[in-house]
Amino acid sequence: MIIVTGNILAKSETLDELFVLALEHSRRSRFEPGCLAHGVHQDCENQLRLVFFEQWTDHSALAQHFHLPASRLFAKEAFALAAEPPKIEIYEAVAVSVGG
Amino acid sequence: MIIVTGNILAKSETLDELFVLALEHSRRSRFEPGCLAHGVHQDCENQLRLVFFEQWTDHSALAQHFHLPASRLFAKEAFALAAEPPKIEIYEAVAVSVGG
Repeated sequence: MIIVTGNILAKSETLDELFVLALEHSRRSRFEPGCLAHGVHQDCENQLRLVFFEQWTDHSALAQHFHLPASRLFAKEAFALAAEPPKIEIYEAVAVSVGG
Repeated sequence: MIIVTGNILAKSETLDELFVLALEHSRRSRFEPGCLAHGVHQDCENQLRLVFFEQWTDHSALAQHFHLPASRLFAKEAFALAAEPPKIEIYEAVAVSVGG
């Protein structure tokens, strides 16, 4: 499984627009092939920071997601509205049973 | 690396208290051995849902974290304040370079 985390720091004057766009992007992405989960959150220590947590079946599904026109448009809009370049991290992940 | 995600659904009357406790837990955890990142967020689709994203160096560090009295107290308090049993997922993860 692939885990993707990303975060976008809004400006106070762009937060409302970014919030709506991020939520639309997240809700749209959930219906794409290979998307296991896609959510967007606000950092409790900085409400201007929108944090994505995504799970995809494999690299191919994620590559398809990145190349969709709607994803590319969102990335472009997010970059334009953000206070700093958005960050993204990608992991190959295997679920383990809960212990401890 | 170990990735931990968790979420706690508050009740409207417990959100403020859970928010404070979750933030305290997150800030305390960052200083523990092997903690690479620890953050708490509010789900943009349901502000009552607090979502944790954590990164730890290895299973041993995470086991130590779970066994600390402060962590066990937080888990107990969170369970008592939550609208449903909190969820936690643990992954063994390897970072990959960003593509696409």
